[in-house]
Amino acid sequence: ELIPASEVNLTARPSRIAEIMKYGFPGMDNVRSHSDYVLSYDRRNRVPHWVFEHLTAASVAKNDAVDRSKCDFRPDESIHPYFRAQNTDYRRSGYDRGHMAAAGNHRLHQKHCEDTFLLSNMAPQVGQGFNRDSWNSLEMYVRKLTQSHPNVYVCTGPLYLPHKEDDGKSYVKYEVIGANTVAVPTHFYKVIVAEAADKKLHMEAYVMPNQVISNDTPLKVFQVPPETVERAAGLLFFDKMNRQQLATINGKKV
Amino acid sequence: ELIPASEVNLTARPSRIAEIMKYGFPGMDNVRSHSDYVLSYDRRNRVPHWVFEHLTAASVAKNDAVDRSKCDFRPDESIHPYFRAQNTDYRRSGYDRGHMAAAGNHRLHQKHCEDTFLLSNMAPQVGQGFNRDSWNSLEMYVRKLTQSHPNVYVCTGPLYLPHKEDDGKSYVKYEVIGANTVAVPTHFYKVIVAEAADKKLHMEAYVMPNQVISNDTPLKVFQVPPETVERAAGLLFFDKMNRQQLATINGKKV
Ligand SMILES: [Mg+2]
Ligand SMILES: [Mg+2]
Repeated sequence: ELIPASEVNLTARPSRIAEIMKYGFPGMDNVRSHSDYVLSYDRRNRVPHWVFEHLTAASVAKNDAVDRSKCDFRPDESIHPYFRAQNTDYRRSGYDRGHMAAAGNHRLHQKHCEDTFLLSNMAPQVGQGFNRDSWNSLEMYVRKLTQSHPNVYVCTGPLYLPHKEDDGKSYVKYEVIGANTVAVPTHFYKVIVAEAADKKLHMEAYVMPNQVISNDTPLKVFQVPPETVERAAGLLFFDKMNRQQLATINGKKV
Repeated sequence: ELIPASEVNLTARPSRIAEIMKYGFPGMDNVRSHSDYVLSYDRRNRVPHWVFEHLTAASVAKNDAVDRSKCDFRPDESIHPYFRAQNTDYRRSGYDRGHMAAAGNHRLHQKHCEDTFLLSNMAPQVGQGFNRDSWNSLEMYVRKLTQSHPNVYVCTGPLYLPHKEDDGKSYVKYEVIGANTVAVPTHFYKVIVAEAADKKLHMEAYVMPNQVISNDTPLKVFQVPPETVERAAGLLFFDKMNRQQLATINGKKV
C-alpha cells in the first residue's frame, strides 16, 4: 500500500523533539511528545504545566489541504482516566477549551493540527475578550515573529497566582470545573526566545490574566521578567540557552 | 581513618531505595532520595507532592544515641533557590513546619533523623490541635502497625481540595506564606500498606483537614477510598502491588 504524502514524517521524530526542546525542558513531569509540540501534563489540575513549540516561517505556513473543521476536541487516552479531562468537564462551564499550543501554529499537516486538539493541550479560558481576543493577539504576535526571526521557541502554560485579602494574608484561589475538577488558571504565560539571523537571541515573557481584556490594551503591558514566571510556575525556562547569545530581554539590552 | 559505627550505611543505598519504593512511585516529579525516605517535590507549591517510607519494628526503634534536639530545620540546597522554602517563610505565619516523613519514624541513626528536618520535607500545618495532636496520632498509629506487620509502607502528602461556594461553583483556595509563597495545604493524606506475616497486604487511606480536630475524633472517621486520594493528588499509589495479595482496604475484605 502506498503511503499518502500527507502522512509521511508527521509523528515526532526524535530529531524533531530535539529541535523543539533545544534550549532545555522547563520541568520533567509527565512529558508527552506530539507531532509538532511537546507537553508536560499536570495530573492534579488536568491541564498542562507547559507546552513547548518551535516555530519557523515554514512550519506555521497555512496548507490549504489542512481542514481545521475536521479537528475534534478529544480526550487524551495517554493520560490515566483519573486525571483525564473530558469534553463534558468544559460543557456549560462558561469557559472555552483554550489551546496552549495554538492550532494556528500547526497548519502544515492535518496531523499537526489534530494533535493540538487533544484535551491535554487545553485549559479553561475566558472566551470572548480573552481566548478569542487578547490571548489570540499574543499568539498572532508570536507567529509573526517568524517573519523576522528564523527560529522562534515558545513555552506556554497556566499560572495560579496569589492575591492579598483583607486579612492581610495571601491566597491562591481558582475555580475547578466538571466531574474531573479541571482547574481554571488565574493567568497564562508565554516565554519566547526568537533567534535572529545573526544568531542573537531575544527573550520575552508575558503574563495575562484569564479575564476579559480590553482590545486596545497593548501587549507590552503584560511583559514581566522571565524569572517572575519561573518562580510562579515552578519551572525553569531556556535553561540550556547560552547566555552569551542573549541580546535582549523584553526589548531591553542585557 | 576508622569510620564510626554511627556513620555506616546511613546514606540511601540503591537497595534501600528499592525497598522503600517496592510498590511503585506515585509520580516522578523532582524525586529526591534520602537516607531513610524518598520524596517528590512540588516546585510550584514549595512543599512535597509525596514522601514514601518503609517502616519496620527495627527501623522505627528509638536509639538513645540519636538526639532530636540536634536536628535543625534547614533549607534543602538540592532545590533551586527559586523554589526553595526557607525558615523565614514559616516564621510568624502561625503554622508549624510539619514533617511529611515523621521524625519519629527515623530515630535509629542521627543522619536519618536529620534528613527529615529538611524544609523540602515540610508543609505548613496547624500546630495545636493538628500537627501536635490528631495528625501526630495518625503518625503514631502507622508506627504501631509495625508491631503487628513485618513491613509497613506509607505515602504521605498534601491535598488542595475544592469546596462549593454560594454561586454553585467549586473553588480551590489555599493560603500561601512567606516571600517564597509556600502553599498551606487544605488537607493531608496518608496511604498505607501493611504487609502481614502471611504476606497478605492491608491498605488504608486517610485524609485529614489542616485544622484543629477534636482529640476525641476516632481516626476511622478520616478513612477514604484510596482512589479518592489518587484523583485529588494526581498520583497513583502502590501501582506495582500484586492485587492478588491485597486482603483488605480500610479494614474491609476486597
Ligand atoms: Mg485559543
Ligand atoms: Mg508533625
